[in-house]
Parts: sequence; C-alpha cells; structure tokens
Amino acid sequence: MARKKKQLKVVFLGGVGEIGKNMTALEYGDNILIIDCGCTFPTVDTPGVDVIVPDFSYLEDNYDKIRGIVITHGHEDHIGGLPYLLDDCRQIPVYGSSLTLALVKHKLKEKGISIPKLNVVKGGEVRKVGCFDVEFISVTHSISGAFALSITTPEGVVFHTGDYKIDYTPISGEHINLSRIAEIGNKGVRLMLGESTNIEKQGSTISETKVGETLDKIIRNNTDKRIIIATFASNINRIQQIISICENLGRRVAFNGRSMKNISVMAKELKLLSAGEQTIVDIDKIGEIEPHKLCIITTGSQGEPMSALTRMCNGEDKVVVGDNDLIIISSSPIPGNEKAVYNVINNLYRRGAKVLYGSLEALHVSGHACQEEIKLMTTLVKPQFFIPVHGEYRHMQQNRELAISLGVNPKNTMIAEIGSCIAVSKKGLTRLDNVVAGNTYVDGLAGVDASILKDRHQLSKEGLVIVLVSVSVQDKSMCAPVEVIARGISLDEEQTDYIKSIVEKVFDDTNYNKPEVREEFKSNVRKKINRYFNNKLRQKPMVLPIVMEK
Amino acid sequence: MARKKKQLKVVFLGGVGEIGKNMTALEYGDNILIIDCGCTFPTVDTPGVDVIVPDFSYLEDNYDKIRGIVITHGHEDHIGGLPYLLDDCRQIPVYGSSLTLALVKHKLKEKGISIPKLNVVKGGEVRKVGCFDVEFISVTHSISGAFALSITTPEGVVFHTGDYKIDYTPISGEHINLSRIAEIGNKGVRLMLGESTNIEKQGSTISETKVGETLDKIIRNNTDKRIIIATFASNINRIQQIISICENLGRRVAFNGRSMKNISVMAKELKLLSAGEQTIVDIDKIGEIEPHKLCIITTGSQGEPMSALTRMCNGEDKVVVGDNDLIIISSSPIPGNEKAVYNVINNLYRRGAKVLYGSLEALHVSGHACQEEIKLMTTLVKPQFFIPVHGEYRHMQQNRELAISLGVNPKNTMIAEIGSCIAVSKKGLTRLDNVVAGNTYVDGLAGVDASILKDRHQLSKEGLVIVLVSVSVQDKSMCAPVEVIARGISLDEEQTDYIKSIVEKVFDDTNYNKPEVREEFKSNVRKKINRYFNNKLRQKPMVLPIVMEK
Repeated sequence: MARKKKQLKVVFLGGVGEIGKNMTALEYGDNILIIDCGCTFPTVDTPGVDVIVPDFSYLEDNYDKIRGIVITHGHEDHIGGLPYLLDDCRQIPVYGSSLTLALVKHKLKEKGISIPKLNVVKGGEVRKVGCFDVEFISVTHSISGAFALSITTPEGVVFHTGDYKIDYTPISGEHINLSRIAEIGNKGVRLMLGESTNIEKQGSTISETKVGETLDKIIRNNTDKRIIIATFASNINRIQQIISICENLGRRVAFNGRSMKNISVMAKELKLLSAGEQTIVDIDKIGEIEPHKLCIITTGSQGEPMSALTRMCNGEDKVVVGDNDLIIISSSPIPGNEKAVYNVINNLYRRGAKVLYGSLEALHVSGHACQEEIKLMTTLVKPQFFIPVHGEYRHMQQNRELAISLGVNPKNTMIAEIGSCIAVSKKGLTRLDNVVAGNTYVDGLAGVDASILKDRHQLSKEGLVIVLVSVSVQDKSMCAPVEVIARGISLDEEQTDYIKSIVEKVFDDTNYNKPEVREEFKSNVRKKINRYFNNKLRQKPMVLPIVMEK
Repeated sequence: MARKKKQLKVVFLGGVGEIGKNMTALEYGDNILIIDCGCTFPTVDTPGVDVIVPDFSYLEDNYDKIRGIVITHGHEDHIGGLPYLLDDCRQIPVYGSSLTLALVKHKLKEKGISIPKLNVVKGGEVRKVGCFDVEFISVTHSISGAFALSITTPEGVVFHTGDYKIDYTPISGEHINLSRIAEIGNKGVRLMLGESTNIEKQGSTISETKVGETLDKIIRNNTDKRIIIATFASNINRIQQIISICENLGRRVAFNGRSMKNISVMAKELKLLSAGEQTIVDIDKIGEIEPHKLCIITTGSQGEPMSALTRMCNGEDKVVVGDNDLIIISSSPIPGNEKAVYNVINNLYRRGAKVLYGSLEALHVSGHACQEEIKLMTTLVKPQFFIPVHGEYRHMQQNRELAISLGVNPKNTMIAEIGSCIAVSKKGLTRLDNVVAGNTYVDGLAGVDASILKDRHQLSKEGLVIVLVSVSVQDKSMCAPVEVIARGISLDEEQTDYIKSIVEKVFDDTNYNKPEVREEFKSNVRKKINRYFNNKLRQKPMVLPIVMEK
C-alpha cells in the first residue's frame, strides 16, 4: 500500500458562515494545531439551551494528533468552548496572552474543571507547536492581549488575522504591529485567513480614544448627577478611560455586576488596569458617597436578564435608579439583543432617569476592522491564497470580493463553511471531503440533541395534549374513561369530549387483543386527533397517547 | 344622585409604550369614536401565536356607545385587529380611504367575516361620527391614502397625526396638506396625539423619489442581469416607480408572492397603479421573456418564512435564482426580523446571485417623520396639550421633550401607557383610572391566555417529564411499574431509574388509602422530582404526574 502523502489541511470547525463560536484547525501529518475554541449564545431556535459549542467529533477522532491550542484573545466566541473540549483534553497545552489565559482559568475553575498547561505568550514571541511555528503578533481589538497569528508550516506561512481593528492610538499602548505584518507579507504568505465581521462598513473604525473624549464631555457637563455607565466587562480599556476621567473630575468609581467585579480585580492583578488608591469604592458602600461624586460601572449593556443593569431597571438591585441618575449605555446591541436592550432603556426612563445611548456616535466603537482597515491588512499580508473567516456567508463573500479587488487571483480564493476541509499547497487550494462538524447544544450540565430541540419547538408553539387510555387486555375493553390532559393549549369541554369520542371510536375499530396492537392503536389515535386539531382549530399540538394495560 | 358631568376622555388601547397594534378611543358621554384597530406579530415571548390584537374588553363593555371606527391608513398595525373586533361589531360604520377600505374588505373576506358599513372618504372631507366631527387630512406615508385626523369635540379639537412623513415630492401626487394643518393650528388645537416612531433620528426622512433614482441607476447599469426586487406589497408608490423605470428601459415586470399579486390588482382597480398593457407579465409565463428583459417584484423583504423570496432562496419556488440574478432588497429589516432577512441574503449569495441591500442609502426610505419633520408638524399644530403616541416609552419620552422644547408647557404633556384613560378639558389633562386593556393572543382560530403562554415557555425551555403511576386503591399498592415519559429533554437509564425510585419512595411515605390523597401524592412527586432535576442536572422540566386508580 502506498504511503499517503502528507498535506497541509485547514479544517473549519466554527466561525465560518456564522458569527460566533470560532474554531479552526491546521493539520499536517500527525500534527493538529487548534486556533480558538469559542461558544455562541442561544437564540429563538434553540430554546432552553445554555450555550452552543462546536461539535468536537473530528478532534475526538484525532485526539492523539492535537499538539496545542492557540487562543487569539479572551472573548467568549474564542474561549467559551474550552470547558467542553478541555474536559477531555487536559494534557493539551494552551497558548495565549496573560489576560486571555486569566479569563480561561477563571472559566475552567467556575466549571470545576482542572486547569491544563497554560502558556502565557507576549506579542512577538514564537512557539513551536508540533510541526508548526506560531508567531503571536499584537493587534488592537476591544479586549487587551489580542493576537494575529503567523504560522510557519511545511507548506508555507498561514496568516490568521484573529479579530482586529487598526487603532493608531490605543489606550493600553499595545499597538498593532503593522511593521511586523508587512515584513511577514514581504517574505511571502501562502494563505491568509481574514476576519470579515465589519466588511459591510465603509471607512475605518473609530479609535477607542474617541469614546473617552465623549464620556469626558458628558461627565463634565453633568456635575449634579450620579453617572451609571454600562459596558462590556472585558473592555478593560474602556473601563480604564472611565476611571481616569473620574479621577480627573473627582468622582469615585464603583463596579456593579459579577463579571465586572471579577474582571476588574483580574485586570488590576495583571497590571492592565490602574486606579488611585482612593478611587474605587465597594458597591456595598456607595451610600457613603454623595451621588454626584460617584460613577458606577455596570454589566448589562446587552440587556441580559440577570445582569446588574436589568436588575436596576426592574428595581431589584441594591442600586436604586431615580431621576438624579444619568445612565450611559456604552455599547451597541449585538444583533438579536435589540429588544432586551430597549426594554431596559424604556424601564430606566420609566424610573425618571436620563438615558444616553445609540444615537451619539462615539458612546461606543466597534472592535472590528471596517473596509479600509481590511484593505490595509490584506495589502500588507499580500497572500497567495485567501479564505475569509468570521462572518456570515454575505460577509465572507464580500471579503472575498474585496481581496480579489486588491489583486488576489479569484482562483486562489475559496469560501469555507462549517465542516469544510481545504488542502493547501503552493499549487492551489483543494476542497477535500467535509469532516463531521456543527453545533453541540449544552443545557444545564447535559448535551441536547437536535430531535429534543425539535420537540421543544413543537411544545412551545402548539402545546401538548395527553390522552390516557386504560385497557383491559383480558376483556379487550377500556376499563376506565379516557382522560385528556392539556398543557400549553386550552380546550373547552366540547373539544375535550370530542377528543374522547375520537379515542373511543379508534378503540372500537381496533381489534385490541394483545399488547402488540398497542403501537398501532396509539399511532391511529395520534393521527385522528392531529387531523381534528388541524382541520377544526388550525392548531398542531403534540399529541401523546398513553395506554395502560391491565 | 347627582348626574355625572360629561367629559372628554382619551382611552389608550394600543400603540403606546410599544410599536404596533395601534388603537385609541375618544369618548364623550354616550359617544365613543375608535381610531385604528391594529395588530402586532408575535415574538420570541409569544411562541405559536399567530397574531396579537388589543384586549377589547373596554369596548365590549361599552358596545352601545361606539359610533364609528376611523382608520388612518391600511398598514397591519392599524387594520389587523379589525377581523377580531368586527366579528362582534358588524353594525359599526368604518371610515377610511379607498385603498385602506379595500385592504380591510380583503382581510375580512379572507377570514370569512361579513363586511360592515365601509365609508370611503377623501382628504379634506368631514364626517360626523356621534358627537365628533372628523376631518380627514391627507398625509404622506409609505402607503397611499393615509390621513391625519382633526376631530372637533365638545371640548375642542383633538389632532391625531396618524403615521406620516413630510414628502414634498410624493410619487402619487397626494401631498401632505400642510396648509390645512396650519389653518387648524391657527384656529386652536386642544390636544395633539403625535407619532413618535422615528424621534431618535435627526434631520428629515428622504423622499420616496430618491429610491426611484437609486433603482433607476442600478437597473440601467445591469442590462445583462435579471432583476428581482423585494419590497412591501403595500408600498404601491415604490411599485409604481419600479414599473415606470422598467417601462422606460424596456423591461417587463412580473409579480411574485400572494399579497404582491393581490395588492397590485387591487391598486390597479382603484387607479392607484398604472402600467402599460404590455408591461405586466404573469409570473407563470416569465419563461417566455429573456431574463435580462425582466424584473420580478416580490414579497419577502422581511425574510418571512412562507414568502416568495424565502422560497426562492431555498430553491422551493418556480423562480429559480442563479448567478445571472441581481436581487435588490428595497426595505430595512423591521426590528426583530434581522436574522431572518440576513438568512435569506446569505442563501441568495450561496446560489451565486448578487445581492444589494442595507448599505446603499436610498434602496429604501422610511415612512415615518424624523426630528425635523416632527418639529414642523408640532409647530404647525401648536397644541395646548400634547400626548405622544406610537412608540416605546423611550420614543414617547423623547417626543414629549421635543414638544416642550417647542413651547408646550411641561404640565400640559403626559405619557400614556396601554390602558391609560386621560380626561381633557381646557383646564388640563387629568389621569383617570386605567381601563382593562392589553394583549389578546390569537392562535389558529382560538384565543390563548397568558397562563398557556407561560406553560409553552416552560415546555420550550426545559421539556416535559410525565410520570405514570397505577394505584390499586383496594390494596393500597402500586399495581404496575412506574412509567417515565420524556419529551424535549433526554434522560438516560440511570436518571429514569432514579426518578422511578423517587416516585416509589414518595408512594411508600404516603398513606394512599383513598382518592383524596391523590393530589397530595402528585404534588409531593412533583416537588421531589423538581428538586432532583434542579440539584443534579440544573434543569427545570415541567413534571406531570399522572395517577391511574383502580
């Protein structure tokens, strides 16, 4: 048998054809390198699910080949899947920045998972992971410690942008290393994997610094009010700006919400956040501070039901909102969260507070590159091959078109979807057979499969009708009246009686002489009752016949 | 007993504190005038509901007082509730423009409801409805035949803006009658009810004419492609523009989607839509036309699951989409529809089509007034009292603040919510007791109450566990093994066995000697099993114990 020739494969396990749940694997011979392992949060289509992570089947089947996991940055869509992967993979080394790994550690601890080998890297460092040399390149994003990756493989360099924006005046002083990216591009990049999130937005993303200017002006102009600012706990640069402004203007700062408290402590330990000794006040002690000398930084900018801001707007938090409060929502609603966010805003208004959100240009800025920034990145990397990542199909298609307009040969671009496996050589990109991939739904501590979600859908849309039949096998007769139990649908007496009569009729038509007839009987009852609901009431509840034999 | 003094009351039955489901009533003595009767479409929170209409309890209690219903325009959020009100109220006259009433008639026919007294009115006409003189004033909006209302009551003039924008160059030639509005304002308006939908948007809404210019340019530049344009069927002016452009450029036009076909026929009959005899081609005969000589106007611009565009993107329609198609989405996603719309766009891209949407400024324009237009309207009406309508709380609050900035005395403004009843006299606005109001959920042909929706929520999020217990009352024993049936949740054998053991334990602890113990037994079973799920699995399925006694 001929020995199989080694080739470089890129396996897409998440983050293509969708936003969220990012995960890509590079494979060469016996070496697999995993890039990111994110999660997505559930939507209408996945009721009752806590979190959605990639289907890890492919990695489980190739467990022995996995040499390491590199994490570009600490957002949930890049680290949120780790507890579910690492539960089985405690021996695999994980690489990332100090903040990224602090967040990973916290997450694993919370889930009671023992901590694997965490390897803190800095921008500019190179680590050998199996046959891959991974260089970590600092980029600017809405969280500190974000990296692009330049991965030297036996088939040339693969450049993965990670999530990035080009912020020339970053708060932390951690610049995006454009010079190094240019150098790598000049040496030759075989394949670029480029993020597509903001491809539909023209121009460039505004610098984080601008948000500071806006907030400074607002806080300066509201010396008589208590200020409450909601933002993402992970946006440490934003929090740093607020702290600095407050220190300047003689306000104390308190943190509200669990993750805000956790991450601020973590960031201070890592020296990513600095505050004068007198600045921070415990949220339980804000009563000691005059309201107009206080600024509260809180979670809940996405209208999350259990968050501090939602509790405040519902009057369920220790922080009581009233007409002396100016509330600033320093974030944009993530698609799908609009309704929840506006509910919170409406209720804050109902409590008499003033609310600033949305319409003011620089209350928030994106962490993702817009068209002009993507053009710069692609131009510097000048790859031979280009595959867009991190986006819905429309975003990836537009990013692909942009790369072509910048000189990439259309034949040298491809669009991947989840499960795509693409071979890379200097000759070209080749689509191989898809691997098993998709979503794993996590509910509580258990996984949920798609048929369960289908059942939940039907139950939620149409409700449930249980029909209880007692049969005496000996007498071949029903030995108790039929019982009808409805949940999530209301039935009046007439409808209930009609359903009972259907069951009796089906029973009479069934030669019910042995248990083997049971399934046939149940199936007929289900069919007839379904027909009744569909024709007479235009409803489709789940019908569940239960037969008790004696 | 002193005779109760008559007063003018405004009763808010919908459209305040929410967008959609508009309905207001004016009441004076024995006279009730209803303004609009809309519906809302269901959201995540109302699974399986077809449509949400106002709770009509107050009107049912005051049925004999209702003198008429005036409809400002024919959008669903203004007419969609009529089938559910008119089912009981066939004798009440309904007033509106010819298009509005044609749409009402069509809607009632579809539901098999007999048609009430429909009274077509034109802009400038005045109709006596009980003690109210209603003047219908033409306004521009995204549907033809839209009115503002100037209602002379015994307590002065109430001015209701309806939905409007100020379009100085409307396609239909139906101008907004600003001069008449100024005249009414000059004579004195007691109370203005002003729409708030776009209050957060600065400047002015762009004219519908601009969309025509954009579409003209795009169609001119794509002479080699088949064009497919998705828009709202009710936007007859948009459709007229597309027809005119196509006639100019030698393209035939076909309509796809049920409501597009219906409304285009209706609009032609009412002479609101004109097309050369050769222009329109039946959708079933488009095979006879060269693709680059064809433009298809289709429903589905909101990603509605059963619409023509969704069928096309899924390959389920007779119109097969491919890489020769240019698809233009001439609408913005209504909040909540984003995901569905982008799904459709992604799938159109997957079929190789080019898609234009969103980012191009004038592919669509709003039908609602922005800040500068609202300022103009409020300035011309210059009311003594002002109550904002048609908006969430945040919109109404901002509209109220705008009115105050234009000179309305803050004391003379009020914010209403659903169920608010406000008395109006020249001395002031007085808040009276709330009336019964809210949502009626319609599912199939039946109503659904809130407890049913609560059940559905639980079922959808957590699933259902049925526990079946057969008890012999005589022996005081279980006469068959416990059965466990799960839906929407998966249980392994160990978990199932554990649940059975819980039931057996509870049974042993119960002195089950008569049927009266049944409820207590069931309640204990439910509690214990709930505790098991909550503690061990962090899940909360609905637990339904069923006891069969023998």
